Amino acid sequence: MADVVLGDITSNYFNETYGEDYADASVMDATDSDNQWMLQSGYMVFFMQAGFAMLCAGSVRAKNAKNIILLNILDACLGSLCWYATGYAFAYGDPPDGAPEGGYTSTQQFIGNRYFFLTNTNSTSDYAFWFFQFTFAATAATIVSGAVAERCRLWAYLSYELILVCFVYPVVAHWVWSVSGWASHFNDNKLLFGVGVCDFAGDGPVHMVGGVASLAGAWVLGPRIGRFDADGKAVDMPGHNASLTLLGVFFLWFGWFGFNPGSTLAIAGYSGLAARVAINTTFGAATGALTTLLIIMGTTKMSTGKTVVDLIMVGNGALAGLVSVTGPCGYMEVWAAIPTGIIGAFVYVGCSKFILNVLKVDDPLDAIAVHAGAGMWGLIATAAFATETLTGAGNNYGFIMGGNGNLLGCQLVIILAIWAWVMGIMVPFFFLLKKANMFRVPPEVESAGLDVSHHGGSAYPHDPEVSKTGVTITSEMIDRKIQDALSRAAGSAPGEKATLNNL
Amino acid sequence: MADVVLGDITSNYFNETYGEDYADASVMDATDSDNQWMLQSGYMVFFMQAGFAMLCAGSVRAKNAKNIILLNILDACLGSLCWYATGYAFAYGDPPDGAPEGGYTSTQQFIGNRYFFLTNTNSTSDYAFWFFQFTFAATAATIVSGAVAERCRLWAYLSYELILVCFVYPVVAHWVWSVSGWASHFNDNKLLFGVGVCDFAGDGPVHMVGGVASLAGAWVLGPRIGRFDADGKAVDMPGHNASLTLLGVFFLWFGWFGFNPGSTLAIAGYSGLAARVAINTTFGAATGALTTLLIIMGTTKMSTGKTVVDLIMVGNGALAGLVSVTGPCGYMEVWAAIPTGIIGAFVYVGCSKFILNVLKVDDPLDAIAVHAGAGMWGLIATAAFATETLTGAGNNYGFIMGGNGNLLGCQLVIILAIWAWVMGIMVPFFFLLKKANMFRVPPEVESAGLDVSHHGGSAYPHDPEVSKTGVTITSEMIDRKIQDALSRAAGSAPGEKATLNNL
Amino acid sequence: MADVVLGDITSNYFNETYGEDYADASVMDATDSDNQWMLQSGYMVFFMQAGFAMLCAGSVRAKNAKNIILLNILDACLGSLCWYATGYAFAYGDPPDGAPEGGYTSTQQFIGNRYFFLTNTNSTSDYAFWFFQFTFAATAATIVSGAVAERCRLWAYLSYELILVCFVYPVVAHWVWSVSGWASHFNDNKLLFGVGVCDFAGDGPVHMVGGVASLAGAWVLGPRIGRFDADGKAVDMPGHNASLTLLGVFFLWFGWFGFNPGSTLAIAGYSGLAARVAINTTFGAATGALTTLLIIMGTTKMSTGKTVVDLIMVGNGALAGLVSVTGPCGYMEVWAAIPTGIIGAFVYVGCSKFILNVLKVDDPLDAIAVHAGAGMWGLIATAAFATETLTGAGNNYGFIMGGNGNLLGCQLVIILAIWAWVMGIMVPFFFLLKKANMFRVPPEVESAGLDVSHHGGSAYPHDPEVSKTGVTITSEMIDRKIQDALSRAAGSAPGEKATLNNL
Repeated sequence: MADVVLGDITSNYFNETYGEDYADASVMDATDSDNQWMLQSGYMVFFMQAGFAMLCAGSVRAKNAKNIILLNILDACLGSLCWYATGYAFAYGDPPDGAPEGGYTSTQQFIGNRYFFLTNTNSTSDYAFWFFQFTFAATAATIVSGAVAERCRLWAYLSYELILVCFVYPVVAHWVWSVSGWASHFNDNKLLFGVGVCDFAGDGPVHMVGGVASLAGAWVLGPRIGRFDADGKAVDMPGHNASLTLLGVFFLWFGWFGFNPGSTLAIAGYSGLAARVAINTTFGAATGALTTLLIIMGTTKMSTGKTVVDLIMVGNGALAGLVSVTGPCGYMEVWAAIPTGIIGAFVYVGCSKFILNVLKVDDPLDAIAVHAGAGMWGLIATAAFATETLTGAGNNYGFIMGGNGNLLGCQLVIILAIWAWVMGIMVPFFFLLKKANMFRVPPEVESAGLDVSHHGGSAYPHDPEVSKTGVTITSEMIDRKIQDALSRAAGSAPGEKATLNNL
Repeated sequence: MADVVLGDITSNYFNETYGEDYADASVMDATDSDNQWMLQSGYMVFFMQAGFAMLCAGSVRAKNAKNIILLNILDACLGSLCWYATGYAFAYGDPPDGAPEGGYTSTQQFIGNRYFFLTNTNSTSDYAFWFFQFTFAATAATIVSGAVAERCRLWAYLSYELILVCFVYPVVAHWVWSVSGWASHFNDNKLLFGVGVCDFAGDGPVHMVGGVASLAGAWVLGPRIGRFDADGKAVDMPGHNASLTLLGVFFLWFGWFGFNPGSTLAIAGYSGLAARVAINTTFGAATGALTTLLIIMGTTKMSTGKTVVDLIMVGNGALAGLVSVTGPCGYMEVWAAIPTGIIGAFVYVGCSKFILNVLKVDDPLDAIAVHAGAGMWGLIATAAFATETLTGAGNNYGFIMGGNGNLLGCQLVIILAIWAWVMGIMVPFFFLLKKANMFRVPPEVESAGLDVSHHGGSAYPHDPEVSKTGVTITSEMIDRKIQDALSRAAGSAPGEKATLNNL
Repeated sequence: MADVVLGDITSNYFNETYGEDYADASVMDATDSDNQWMLQSGYMVFFMQAGFAMLCAGSVRAKNAKNIILLNILDACLGSLCWYATGYAFAYGDPPDGAPEGGYTSTQQFIGNRYFFLTNTNSTSDYAFWFFQFTFAATAATIVSGAVAERCRLWAYLSYELILVCFVYPVVAHWVWSVSGWASHFNDNKLLFGVGVCDFAGDGPVHMVGGVASLAGAWVLGPRIGRFDADGKAVDMPGHNASLTLLGVFFLWFGWFGFNPGSTLAIAGYSGLAARVAINTTFGAATGALTTLLIIMGTTKMSTGKTVVDLIMVGNGALAGLVSVTGPCGYMEVWAAIPTGIIGAFVYVGCSKFILNVLKVDDPLDAIAVHAGAGMWGLIATAAFATETLTGAGNNYGFIMGGNGNLLGCQLVIILAIWAWVMGIMVPFFFLLKKANMFRVPPEVESAGLDVSHHGGSAYPHDPEVSKTGVTITSEMIDRKIQDALSRAAGSAPGEKATLNNL
């Protein structure tokens, strides 16, 4: 190298000027690589926030677009501070010297208790992991925004967010992923059925927590005005921009490549596992979308005689497939991602119909079906398809693959535990909000739209249908204008139909 | 490090619990780095799917937005399964023990024949490469969606996709990139003119295959209703959302940084090459866009007296520049990317005019001009600008740089071979579809729009122009309403112009 | 490894076939890792171009959407060529053999003078750094597009871009970041107060340069027609698509994870620092957005009695928080990012009001307040919160943290220097353009919109309000039509109000 190069000089200066020990390494340290992997994967998971925001924005009516995007950006913001304050500590604040003699206490198994505000942590060994896990907590929280869209008050949403990221999510993450959690596969003692829950990237802590909280929220909040007719039959209420919705789906799929493969938490020695997970992620999305396509075509043909291909449902099918493989993606062979995604699509469509038509719960984004529904299936799929080699826990692998039923036991226990935990906290909390009249906007605000009411005007202020007073120019309006004009011409009072009532 | 850190603990647990051998490496292995590079580059190439979807969505009329996005998401889905089944095997299923004595057989030179469904592969050594190459196959396939937009049936599109990713694309990839391909630079025997085709990131297998198939499809399918007037003159038919179109261009440019630099297939020892490619990619896009800007300004000024700057064409110019450097980007100095992009812009604009005005082929996205046109130029540019050092094949480098003409011979041969191969398969296939009346939607569906006809309604259902019956409120409608009203007022029959025919 | 794997084979072929020395390394070289880090971070910074484009597009009126996106894509294009020609050389073209005896000359301290057109550089040691720094230069340049939106001529914008990337930005980058710059922390002699300016990721060179140039441009150009009423009071002029604007905000936040953590310029030995920076970046955005939310709610409640939550301002608050931490993010503890972001929000809101209501400067994107305002604050925040350990410059660290005032001195000097340098060049330049009548489009073009006037039609040509002649169908038009019709019916001349003037 003939030239002195600034990049190197800069690095040398860093070595000299920074107090921390920046070695002028000639080979790449595994720790640095693993940190890089977690950071870059975390960036992609963060990008899922943009995906959720666009998914939500496109799926609501234009009059609430600003509001829903606001909820989405604020939960990333508030979430980071919640994670800093208590979230990380409750999730990963294990005893610093490893398992005490006699094993972890039941409190330690239930919740972490150190590293609040990143105290006693170290930038090289902890910060990248903290950041990666923050993006997961934020994902769990943002799921709910869709289910309560178009009618939830801002402060109610932020309060919910606070509780979820500070406490509800971290506790579940602790159970499943910390070394001291009672249900954790990483707990040396493998307390639960001798194996512990296998959940590679978070069907339980992330998707089920978000999805179950969505059900609690949407149920307590009640449906949007007009979502069900007088007979209780659901009325179609499409979002305002399908392009935006699908843009969100693409973003989420892309971000999921950070979410799932990034959950190896390391790349040194794990790149093969990461690649396997990337393929499983792809197959999950692919089969979820394609199967949903076929289900929709079949059911619409049967029920109406006309085949309708609902793009939004295909998009949600891709997401359901992604959720389905999130749990098992690191524990199964690539072929197994295909049945996992296919069944995930059936689970999604079934849950969606059940929630809307039987439970009569209005979930504008189908978040409950996608995240709680397919999330449960993903945990069970792990119990079905996990291989001996990839699980590395003796006979405790997938029952379809020849393992015993212990893993299925673990997965069923955690599913029940998450339902109980999340519903047990969130339903009373949402009822309290409702009781205090702090949960839902007044009907006139809902009708006018949250954007005009609270955000200073429409997201699309120049669109012709929205005049300054929020009135839409419709065909009916024009008819009325003509009628009024002719009435006036004929000498009648405006509004009176005069001789033109057959118009 | 005072604290025990969960990230490390987790990794240790992985080592203990997983059956595969996860070494607790202290330095980063080159294989892991290379896998990471291919995975992360592949994620970016996958993101190009979002780019194509938005590019297409913005470039079609609003009434077909859902349909075109559906095609785009489904081809990524179906493509992954096709690549799994046969695509990868046909492309990279070389004999497992290297070249047999006497060289590869002609069958082996033509097509691969192992690794179907990822059998006999290994997650650490193959999966990241498989994933990266999958994203390439999906890119080739998605190119066509634009050319057949607004009139193609869903099943016809999916059939085409199946054939392309299962068979047509993989064979060309095998010829050019496998170690046994007859035209491959990586074939030890360098069968073609002693050097083999130099195509760094895929002007031949990806862009020409996609672009030529686009021509076959758009030609057999015929133009959209109203695209040419009674005299055969093209009628302008702009897309509905230029912001969305350009969003797609930005996404594609971004994703191309995965596509081109990622094609080093390795980062250990190749980071300088990757950086060179990143710069060449940038210059290609930059000069493609700027040159197109100048061409448009000049031609509109000359032909109409008024300078019109067509943003969509500038965006396509950037893409054409990117396609132009895709082939040569790893074989040429950075300065050479500038003439490559400049000429690429002329090729794009010329092909676009020729296809529309001479061939009378309606390509709503200009996909043929961008991908087949600039793709051919990119292969020739490689023969012109490849340097001795970067090509490493004796005298067989760029003719402008002082090399002999062998490389140009290779590039011309592969251009002809791709034309023959793709047209030879796709034209009969598309004609068969057409004959069976399975290729194109009926005229009334095309007029009403595919979204209302097949997808349950508009992508923008609340837009004022679209009433429940799909009718647009236009100035003409209002006039007619008034006329009818007054006719009625005057006692005439509705629709009769009465005394108001001068209105 | 039983199988021969194509990925490896390909790499081996590269080793044999390429002239450059591609070692078949078994461990990852730190140089390769650092290059990879700079490239991948650079891709993310490049993605910020898409963010700015969408932020701008959404924030202008629909009639100028194509124009503003064109400016954004062209500045990335032209910027790359400018950076190639002179930008990089002026910024980082330090003497090749390090500091001469007696230190750098004053010319060397002021400006670099080698590496024009990448001459005498090496792909492995320089190209990734060049690419990363190019994305920074392009970011600085694109900031201005928002401030001059909806009224600036294309050529004027491109001329400005040329000067900024070729000369104005590189000189400031040289001062602050090169090893020979007079204000540089990386200059061995630490000429400025014995420490030099600490600006981790570019509050000075990038954000202040872009923001101050924005002020110069928007001020000389004058406000958009109708932005101020006859009394000089600002009239609200919202953009046409808040969803697009916030999409831009999400993209920018995401890209900032390339911008800030990537500014370590190395990952080998720096992954802990990068992780710290990623967290600081997150907290900056989070507190910036949340604080802005509270400020807006408070001020609107106080001034109008009604709480209005302005989504656009919350988005800009996130950006202001990001700008605020850009300078100090590598020098401070994570807790310090919180007050930095909070104060940044106040600075943003205050500057925004001041610029609009006191200076009467019309900045459609609030680019001046976000980039120049929060940029200055970020430099001062560094002087306040930089720690001894992270700064590594003796007592010259943050005054709040116990350091002396030298760092504050440095930061104040560079703030003044940037104001003087950028205003000193850009104001005369913009005045010259104005004098030559080359800066601003004619009023009739501005009223009709740049898209219809110069770009061949609207970005949304099918939107109902825009007929072929560019006329909007409004409620008033319908009234007039009715009136005309009835006038005709009554035998009066069209346009005459006849007996219907009370309509």
